[in-house]
Amino acid sequence: MSAPLLDSLIDSLRCLPGVGAKSAQRMAYHLLERDRDGGRLLARQLEAAMARIGHCAQCRDFCEGERCAICTSGSRDDSQLCVVETPADRLAIEQATGYRGLYFVLQGRLSPLDGIGPRELGLDKLVARLAEGQVRELIIATNPTVEGEATAHLLAQIARAHAVRPSRIAHGVPLGGELEYIDRGTLSHAFGSRSEVTD
Amino acid sequence: MSAPLLDSLIDSLRCLPGVGAKSAQRMAYHLLERDRDGGRLLARQLEAAMARIGHCAQCRDFCEGERCAICTSGSRDDSQLCVVETPADRLAIEQATGYRGLYFVLQGRLSPLDGIGPRELGLDKLVARLAEGQVRELIIATNPTVEGEATAHLLAQIARAHAVRPSRIAHGVPLGGELEYIDRGTLSHAFGSRSEVTD
Repeated sequence: MSAPLLDSLIDSLRCLPGVGAKSAQRMAYHLLERDRDGGRLLARQLEAAMARIGHCAQCRDFCEGERCAICTSGSRDDSQLCVVETPADRLAIEQATGYRGLYFVLQGRLSPLDGIGPRELGLDKLVARLAEGQVRELIIATNPTVEGEATAHLLAQIARAHAVRPSRIAHGVPLGGELEYIDRGTLSHAFGSRSEVTD
Repeated sequence: MSAPLLDSLIDSLRCLPGVGAKSAQRMAYHLLERDRDGGRLLARQLEAAMARIGHCAQCRDFCEGERCAICTSGSRDDSQLCVVETPADRLAIEQATGYRGLYFVLQGRLSPLDGIGPRELGLDKLVARLAEGQVRELIIATNPTVEGEATAHLLAQIARAHAVRPSRIAHGVPLGGELEYIDRGTLSHAFGSRSEVTD
């Protein structure tokens, strides 16, 4: 109201996910009152990140240079390739599991209504990668949504066409979950996908 | 992990209030994936705001120039001066009430343990203002906390010393509140500050 610059800052902060008018105002006041250095640093980091972070030429994950640290690491197993929808999914798998293979990041999922087809997901790059013959297993870790399942289906077809074994991460009742409160779809899937108990 | 620039961006985003590691990561990925223009604009706005937003020479509120829009507006009543702790409090009063007087923003409250005394709150400036003789009523709108009350007490003393009438905004049961669920302190205060019902 009294300061157009302050109003524009509050407006701009709303581009952050989960930040509404009230939070944006609180953030702007906090930075101005107590952390101008932090605000300046954030401005510089944002500027640099938006300008210089691109995509890895091999796996399409975010990276600053030509190829990302995982793709250029000599210690990863290049016979396994895990396909995920987003860099955040890649990070989650990297943090939670002991997976030592490589990744391919779709940066989305098949969604014809939004104009996202195989080309937008870089599947031509994936096909070229599988054609090289190094990959033995394609681990499909797209989300268990309708679009994620459609994407998984297409990925499995592509894998089989190149004599690569496709696999899908397991879906079912989460650890610590209670059957009583699990949604029907998940429970039905978990029931149908039961595996034999061995000693 | 793979991109130092991405990690620094996530780190910097945590300077925002209420933003932890997970939200910061979500924000960084969101900007990189979907809103690089928004990110660039935010960087520019932050840079400009941190560098150019200062304090109004008269009321100490945030402002870009020498004096803020409210202080320079000719249409406000300069016989009333409302003292608040922060610019956010000033904005809240401006949005909720029809107050047409002027403001004085302490940018804090008395807190000797944190080294915040009368000098840090700009009380010398307030004293000079009251000495000018224009102000008839000093409306004290500090928060009803221990430190806010101590500040209010000092402000009232200063006002009386300059023959200015001090007033305090009312504290009590909020509109729509239920007596059963109000904290004891508020209820006791509301009971003690009861006013006569007139037709």
